[in-house]
Amino acid sequence: MANDVNFILDPRLENDTILIKDLKLSKLLLMNNKLYPWLILVPKKHNITEIIDLTPPEQQTLLSEINQTSTLLQKIYNPDKLNIAALGNVVSQLHIHLIARYKNDITFPKPVWIDDRKEFYSEKEIADIKKKIIR
Amino acid sequence: MANDVNFILDPRLENDTILIKDLKLSKLLLMNNKLYPWLILVPKKHNITEIIDLTPPEQQTLLSEINQTSTLLQKIYNPDKLNIAALGNVVSQLHIHLIARYKNDITFPKPVWIDDRKEFYSEKEIADIKKKIIR
Repeated sequence: MANDVNFILDPRLENDTILIKDLKLSKLLLMNNKLYPWLILVPKKHNITEIIDLTPPEQQTLLSEINQTSTLLQKIYNPDKLNIAALGNVVSQLHIHLIARYKNDITFPKPVWIDDRKEFYSEKEIADIKKKIIR
Repeated sequence: MANDVNFILDPRLENDTILIKDLKLSKLLLMNNKLYPWLILVPKKHNITEIIDLTPPEQQTLLSEINQTSTLLQKIYNPDKLNIAALGNVVSQLHIHLIARYKNDITFPKPVWIDDRKEFYSEKEIADIKKKIIR
């Protein structure tokens, strides 16, 4: 999958997240908010806002990266439920949220986007998460 | 794709929606709330709560049904943005929301799940939507 030279990560996504890893199609980002285990996939494609804007092979890769990321979240966090969503009402650049939810997290059963609270990770916590995800 | 004889639509989904059509894998439902053009896909599989619980061929069919439904929503409603999500915090039976959003809808840019308001469709409106979707 050729890299799209015109792709630039939206500055709001860049600001809110930490790069974990470049996958084949997407950047795998960690939302810098320790209230929820929350990863984001951003296909490295210029000017794409909807999943159906991707070509069929890109969609296949995205599905596979969603599966990989889901499996990771389940293995690392053992959540009660995954929340997977492509919304993009604020940042229109296509990005897929993958969030590990617990029945006793502070917002359950409501979706996390209603909650404006944020707690940043420490450098040490980020390094630990990266190690768990990348190995 | 063999029908799963043990599949029963969750009673809350059944209560909140209108059946539009049985697709190969999923039931295509219309959320009975005219505040948002809102369709739901429910794979007819027993005891499945996550996309990764589906087999690879089932996932392929789901992706294709998400594409079909997205195209339909764009064609019929010409939205500013699609919102596609598998949450399942309240109803754990796997179901995918596909919602046509407008920059001037009553909740934008927030996700629709924060809004408890509901306005039911009339019989005539339901018949019109079915006609548009099924043709």
